[in-house]
Amino acid sequence: MSLAPILGHSPELEALRLKVERYVDEVAIPLETPDLGYDVQAHDERAVVLRAKAREAGIYLPQLPVSHGGLGLNWKERAVILEEAGRSALAPIGMNCAPPDQPNMINLIDLGTPAQKARYLEPLMAGQVRSCFAMTEPHPGAGSDPSMLRTFARRRSGGWVIDGHKWFASGAVGAAFAIVLAQTEEGATLFLVDADNPGYRFKRDVRSMDGFGGGGHGELVFESCEVADDAVLGEVGKGFAYAQMRLEPARISHCMRFIGRTGRALQIAQDYVNRRSSFGNPLSELQQIQAMVADSHIEMHACRLMVWHVAAKMDLGESVKHESAMTKVFVSEALYRIADRAAQMMGALGMSEDAPVSRILRELRPFRIYDGASELHRATIARRVLRSGQRP
Amino acid sequence: MSLAPILGHSPELEALRLKVERYVDEVAIPLETPDLGYDVQAHDERAVVLRAKAREAGIYLPQLPVSHGGLGLNWKERAVILEEAGRSALAPIGMNCAPPDQPNMINLIDLGTPAQKARYLEPLMAGQVRSCFAMTEPHPGAGSDPSMLRTFARRRSGGWVIDGHKWFASGAVGAAFAIVLAQTEEGATLFLVDADNPGYRFKRDVRSMDGFGGGGHGELVFESCEVADDAVLGEVGKGFAYAQMRLEPARISHCMRFIGRTGRALQIAQDYVNRRSSFGNPLSELQQIQAMVADSHIEMHACRLMVWHVAAKMDLGESVKHESAMTKVFVSEALYRIADRAAQMMGALGMSEDAPVSRILRELRPFRIYDGASELHRATIARRVLRSGQRP
Amino acid sequence: MSLAPILGHSPELEALRLKVERYVDEVAIPLETPDLGYDVQAHDERAVVLRAKAREAGIYLPQLPVSHGGLGLNWKERAVILEEAGRSALAPIGMNCAPPDQPNMINLIDLGTPAQKARYLEPLMAGQVRSCFAMTEPHPGAGSDPSMLRTFARRRSGGWVIDGHKWFASGAVGAAFAIVLAQTEEGATLFLVDADNPGYRFKRDVRSMDGFGGGGHGELVFESCEVADDAVLGEVGKGFAYAQMRLEPARISHCMRFIGRTGRALQIAQDYVNRRSSFGNPLSELQQIQAMVADSHIEMHACRLMVWHVAAKMDLGESVKHESAMTKVFVSEALYRIADRAAQMMGALGMSEDAPVSRILRELRPFRIYDGASELHRATIARRVLRSGQRP
Amino acid sequence: MSLAPILGHSPELEALRLKVERYVDEVAIPLETPDLGYDVQAHDERAVVLRAKAREAGIYLPQLPVSHGGLGLNWKERAVILEEAGRSALAPIGMNCAPPDQPNMINLIDLGTPAQKARYLEPLMAGQVRSCFAMTEPHPGAGSDPSMLRTFARRRSGGWVIDGHKWFASGAVGAAFAIVLAQTEEGATLFLVDADNPGYRFKRDVRSMDGFGGGGHGELVFESCEVADDAVLGEVGKGFAYAQMRLEPARISHCMRFIGRTGRALQIAQDYVNRRSSFGNPLSELQQIQAMVADSHIEMHACRLMVWHVAAKMDLGESVKHESAMTKVFVSEALYRIADRAAQMMGALGMSEDAPVSRILRELRPFRIYDGASELHRATIARRVLRSGQRP
Repeated sequence: MSLAPILGHSPELEALRLKVERYVDEVAIPLETPDLGYDVQAHDERAVVLRAKAREAGIYLPQLPVSHGGLGLNWKERAVILEEAGRSALAPIGMNCAPPDQPNMINLIDLGTPAQKARYLEPLMAGQVRSCFAMTEPHPGAGSDPSMLRTFARRRSGGWVIDGHKWFASGAVGAAFAIVLAQTEEGATLFLVDADNPGYRFKRDVRSMDGFGGGGHGELVFESCEVADDAVLGEVGKGFAYAQMRLEPARISHCMRFIGRTGRALQIAQDYVNRRSSFGNPLSELQQIQAMVADSHIEMHACRLMVWHVAAKMDLGESVKHESAMTKVFVSEALYRIADRAAQMMGALGMSEDAPVSRILRELRPFRIYDGASELHRATIARRVLRSGQRP
Repeated sequence: MSLAPILGHSPELEALRLKVERYVDEVAIPLETPDLGYDVQAHDERAVVLRAKAREAGIYLPQLPVSHGGLGLNWKERAVILEEAGRSALAPIGMNCAPPDQPNMINLIDLGTPAQKARYLEPLMAGQVRSCFAMTEPHPGAGSDPSMLRTFARRRSGGWVIDGHKWFASGAVGAAFAIVLAQTEEGATLFLVDADNPGYRFKRDVRSMDGFGGGGHGELVFESCEVADDAVLGEVGKGFAYAQMRLEPARISHCMRFIGRTGRALQIAQDYVNRRSSFGNPLSELQQIQAMVADSHIEMHACRLMVWHVAAKMDLGESVKHESAMTKVFVSEALYRIADRAAQMMGALGMSEDAPVSRILRELRPFRIYDGASELHRATIARRVLRSGQRP
Repeated sequence: MSLAPILGHSPELEALRLKVERYVDEVAIPLETPDLGYDVQAHDERAVVLRAKAREAGIYLPQLPVSHGGLGLNWKERAVILEEAGRSALAPIGMNCAPPDQPNMINLIDLGTPAQKARYLEPLMAGQVRSCFAMTEPHPGAGSDPSMLRTFARRRSGGWVIDGHKWFASGAVGAAFAIVLAQTEEGATLFLVDADNPGYRFKRDVRSMDGFGGGGHGELVFESCEVADDAVLGEVGKGFAYAQMRLEPARISHCMRFIGRTGRALQIAQDYVNRRSSFGNPLSELQQIQAMVADSHIEMHACRLMVWHVAAKMDLGESVKHESAMTKVFVSEALYRIADRAAQMMGALGMSEDAPVSRILRELRPFRIYDGASELHRATIARRVLRSGQRP
Repeated sequence: MSLAPILGHSPELEALRLKVERYVDEVAIPLETPDLGYDVQAHDERAVVLRAKAREAGIYLPQLPVSHGGLGLNWKERAVILEEAGRSALAPIGMNCAPPDQPNMINLIDLGTPAQKARYLEPLMAGQVRSCFAMTEPHPGAGSDPSMLRTFARRRSGGWVIDGHKWFASGAVGAAFAIVLAQTEEGATLFLVDADNPGYRFKRDVRSMDGFGGGGHGELVFESCEVADDAVLGEVGKGFAYAQMRLEPARISHCMRFIGRTGRALQIAQDYVNRRSSFGNPLSELQQIQAMVADSHIEMHACRLMVWHVAAKMDLGESVKHESAMTKVFVSEALYRIADRAAQMMGALGMSEDAPVSRILRELRPFRIYDGASELHRATIARRVLRSGQRP
C-alpha cells in the first residue's frame, strides 16, 4: 500500500525504488541460499558480487551524501528505499547500507580526522572491508545500562591500553576493525582498533536465533591492547554522546529495512492462501485468515506512517527522541506479530526453511530487544510523559 | 504530543485550537453533569447555552464551508479541531459538529433542493432543531448488511407511502426530522420525514451502554407514512450511494473526536498516578503503570497519524476507502484499549462516575461496532488485499 | 461444558443444581427489570420476594453449615452451585449468598460472641437486614495498600470513638450495620457499627459502571462515632488478619458467580449468531465469530478448572494464597474478554440494554480491580515466585 | 508449582519423578550440545547412551504397559512424568517416549499382528531402530485436510503397490520403517513400509525452525513401492480411524512434554532476573519483569490443569475429543507466549544459543501448527458448540 501520494514520493524516487526492487528480486533474493551457514568467507565472496551489481544498478550507498559517493537521499526518501532494499537481508549488504557499517560510517564522517577517514572510512565506503561496533559487555558489564561499562582504556606514553570484554558485537566475524566504547578517566571514549592488533582477540561468534547475517555477533576480548593517540574517534570523554548520535539513525533505519522484510513474508503468505484450499474452501475465504491479513495490513500501515513521521522530523532537523522510541517499540512488536501471522497462515510450510518466512520470523525476534528492549523504552517513554505533565 | 511541526499546523489553526481548548475546559466540561440522565428537554436546554457560547467564541460549525457560515476548515485542520472539541461530548454539540446532524448536513448540502435546504438545512445549521438518520433495522432487516433493507416506500399520486421499522437511529429522541433510507422499486432512496408526520412513530429510546448523548438511539416505526414527492433527497434509487457518501466523513470525524475524548481520559489517569502512592511507591514509578502509559501514548500517536493521513488524502480529493477502513478498525480498537488502561490505572475511582473515565470507556465501546464492526471491516480489507494481489 | 464426570459431581449435587437452574430461569431473571435504577426500597422489596422463593425451593444459604440453617456445601460443591446461581445477579441475593453479606457472615460466625451473633448474624442469615464492609478509604487513606489506614478508633471509658472516612463500601445503601476496619493503638481492629449510630453518616452512593446491585458502593463518614466495647469483632489488633480471612473465600466465590454470569452472556450471544445472517451467511458460519466462540469456551474451561482446583484445596484445608491469587487474575481478565466478545458478537444489540449482555460486561469490568487489581496480584505472585526460587 | 496435593500424586510417583528429574539434569541436559547439527549418525549414537542410562535409572518406556516392558503409568501419572522428562528434548528420546515412535507403538500394540509386532514393535521398544509416520503430503495432497489424500495403494497379486509423495514425516531421517497412510479402493489404509524397500525413497530432510530433533522432518517419495499383504496394519479402509486413535494421545503427550520444556525456559529466565541488575535495580524488582513472570505462572498453571483434566478423563475411558482440542489450542498458544517472555526477560542472551531459551522458543513455535493449527481447532470447537446449542 504505497504512501506515495501523500508522503511526497517524487517520480525520481519512484524510479530509484524500481531499480532497487529489480535488484532485490533479481540479484539479492536468488543469492539467499541457506547452504552458506556460518562460513564467513563464502558470505564475503557473495558480498563482492552483490556490491558490484549494486554499483552497476546505481543504487550503492543510498544513505550517504553525494560528496561521499552516495545518493544523497534525505530521511523521507530513505524510508522508501531502505524498505524496498530490506526485503532481502542481502540487498542492504550489497548496497552498503547495512549495519553495523552504516552507523560506523556515520560516526566516521562526523567525527573522523582526515587520516582516520582515509584509513577506515574509505575502504568501508568502497566495500573492501567490514567493521563492527563493540559496546555491549557480558555480565556484570554494560548491557542495556551503559553506565556499567567495564572496558577501560588507560593512558600511556603516546597512546592507550585497552582491557575489557565485549560481546554481541554484530558483524565482528571477519571485521577489519572495531569501534570500541571504553571507559577512561575523562569519561567514555570511542577508539578505532584494528582486528590485527595483538591485543584484540576475536573469541567466538555468539550464535543467535537470527542466524549469521553480515558477520554474526562476536565476542571480543581486549587484553593489554595498545593503540596510539590517533585511535581516539572524536573527543575523549564524549563516547556516550557519540554512541547516542548513531543510535537514533540506526534504529529508524532498522525499522525501514524490517518493514520491507516483513512485507515480503506477508506477501509470500498472501500468495500461499490465494492458491491453497482446505476442506473445500480456498484459504483466502476463511475469515480467520482474512483477520490475520487485515490486522497485518493495518499494523503495517501504522508502522510506515510512524517511520515516515520520524523521517520527516529528522529532515527538518528536529529532535525525534520521543517519537523514535515510540516508533521503535511499535514497529518491532507489530512486525513480529505480522511475521508470526504470515508463518501461521502457511502451516507447516511456514515453519520450514523451504519458504523464507520462518527465517524472517527468526530475524525479527531480536529486534524487540536490540537497540533497546521494548520494556526499557516503555519505562523511558512513560517517565518522560509523566514528568512533563503534557497532554496526551 | 502535537504533530504540528510535521503536519502543517499553522499559527491560525493553533489560535483556533486554543479557542476550542478554552471552550471545552470552561464551557463544555463544567456542564457535564450526570444528573440530566435521559431528560431530553434538559439536554436540549443545555445545548442552547453551549451553542450560544460556541458562536461567541467563534468556533461554531467548524466543518462547514464559509459560504454556509462555517469556518471552512479542510480535513487536516478538522483533525486538530475535532480532536480538541471531542474531549467533551458536549463541545461538538455546542459547536454543531456532532453526529448525526453533521453528516445529515453533508447530505443536505450535497443533495438538497433550495426548498429542502431552506426547510431542513437552515434550522439545522442554526442549531434550532436536531435530526436523525434512520437506516438500521431490527432483525431480519438491514443491520450491517444494508441489502436486507425492509423499509419500503411505494409511489402514490403526488408522493410516497413509507412502511417500515428502524432502530439505533442515533439522536432520534426529540429530533425534528429524520433522513430515512427506504427501498423503492427503483432502488434504495433517501427521504426527509418530519417527526410530526402522523405516520412517523417514535416508539422508544433503545438504551445503550454509551448513555443518552445527543438524543439517544431511537426505535422508529413508519406506518402508512405519507410524504410528498419533494421529500426525496437527491435522486430516487441512489440511497445506498448517498449513505456511503456520508459514511466515510462521519467515520473519520468520529475518530477525531474520540481521539480527543480518550486523550482526556488518559490525562486524568496520568494526573492520578502522578499524585498517588501505594505501598510506599508513587504509582507513577511502577513499571506496570508505566507500561500502560507508554503503550497508550504509542497507540495514540499511531491513531493520530492514521487519521491525519486519511484527512490529507481527502483534502487531495483521493479515495480513502481502504485507508479509512483500516483507520477505523485500528483507532476504535486502540482507543478502547487506552481508555480501559486509563480506568485500570485509577483503580476503584476509575470505575466510579466521580471521574469521567468510566463514562468515556462506556462511550467508546460501541465505536468498535457502529460504523461497521471491526470484524466486518477486517473481512472487507482482507478480501480487497487478497484479490488485488498487491504487495503489502 | 460440565466438568462433572471428573470433578466429583454427585447426583445429589446435580439435583440441587437443577433446582437452582430453575430458580434462576423462573424467578431471578424475570425480576431483572432495568426500571428499578437506584431505588433502594424497590430493590429491597424485590429481595423479599426472591428470598421467599429461594427458601421454598430449598436453595437458601447454600454456603452456610447445616448448623446455621445452610445447605452445608463444601467448596467444590459451591463451585457448581454459585456458578449456577451467578447467572443472574439477583439469584445470589435471593439465596443469601451474595457479598458483602456472605463474607460478613463468615466473619461473624468465626469471630462473633453469642450476643453479636444474636444481634447481627441472625437477622443477616434470616435475610431481614443487609450489611456492609467498610475498609477502603479515599485518598490518602487505605486503598489497595491497607497499611495506609486512616480511620482511627480511640479507647474511651467503656468503649471506643471512631473517626474516619470510607468509601466503596459495597452494599452500604440501606445497610443496617457495617463491619468497620479501624486503626487502634494495638493495631487494626474490626468494629460492628449500627447504621443508626449518630456518629455513622451515610454520605452518598458512589455511582459506578457496574450499577446499583445489592446496595451500591457507599461513602461513609464516622464522626466521633461512639461504640461500646462489645462492638469489637474478634480481638483488638487482629483486624488485618480477619480481613484477610474473608478475602480469599470472597474472591473465589466471586469467581464462581461471575463464571455463571459470563456463561449466560456467552449463551445469549451463541443463540444470537445461531439465528442471524449477514451478507447471506449465517453468523455462526463466519470464522471470526467461531474464533470468538472457541476462545471463549477454552478460557471458560480454564477458569472453571482453576476455580475448582482452589475449591478442592480449600476443602482439604490447604493454603490457597498463591493459587487463589493466580485464579483471581486469570478469571477476572478472561471473563471480561469473554463478555466483551459476547457483546461484540451481537453487534448493536450487544451494546443495548435490550439484551443483558452489555450490563454483564459493565458488571464484570470492576472485578479486574476489586479484590485486588490484576497489577497488584501480578507483582505479589511474581515476587513470591522469584524469592522462593522454586521451579515453575 | 506442584499440583500434587490435589491431583493424586502418590509417593511412588514422586519417587519416579525424582529419578526422571535426576536423569534430565545429569544425563540429558549435559548431552544437549549444539554441535551435532544435522548429523543423524551422531544423534543416534547419543541416543544409544541416553537409552542405556534410562534403562539403568528404571525410567525406560514409562508410557507402555508392564506387559510390554513399560512402567504401566496411567495418563494422570504420565502427566507428571512426561512433563518432567520434557524439560530436555533428549530425555523422552532416551526414555523412548518421544514421537513419532511413541504413537507408532500405540498403533502397533493395538493393531499389529504377532508377526508385525515381532518385526516392528520389538526393535522399536528395544530402542534399536527408529520409525516415522508418513501422512502429510505436499500441495495439493493431504495437509490439514486428510480427505485430500493422494498417495494411493493398488492391490496386486499377493500385495500392494504404493505411489505417492509425503513430507513433514517427523523422524524420517534414519528411520528403519514408516507407517504410511495411503488411499485404497476400500478407503484409507495404514501400511508398514521398510526404509530399504526399493520403492521407498527418502528425498530430503525438510529443514524447519524447530531444528533436527529426533530425525528431522522427512520428504518421502513412494514410487511403485511394492509391499506384501502383511504390510497392512489393522484393517483395510480404516486408516483414518487409526490415525485418529493415535492423534489424541500424541497431542496430549506433546502438551505434557512441552509444559516441562517451557518450565525449564522460564526457570532459566527467573534465575537470570534474580541475578542481574539494570540501572541500579535488580531486574526481579521491575514490575514489567514481574508481570511477565506472573502471567507465565498463571498460564502454566492453567495449562497443567487442562492437561491433567484430559488425562483424568482418559483414565476413565471417557471421550476427550472436545477437551483435548481446547487443551491443545490453549497449551500450544500459552506455552509459546511463556517461552517468548522467558527469552525477552533475558535480553540479548535470550536470543543467543548460549542459553537454551531461544532454542526452546523455536521448538515450540510449530506446536501451534502441528497436530492441527489453532485456527483449525477453533473452527471445529466452535461449530461443535454452536450446533449442540449446549450451555457454555
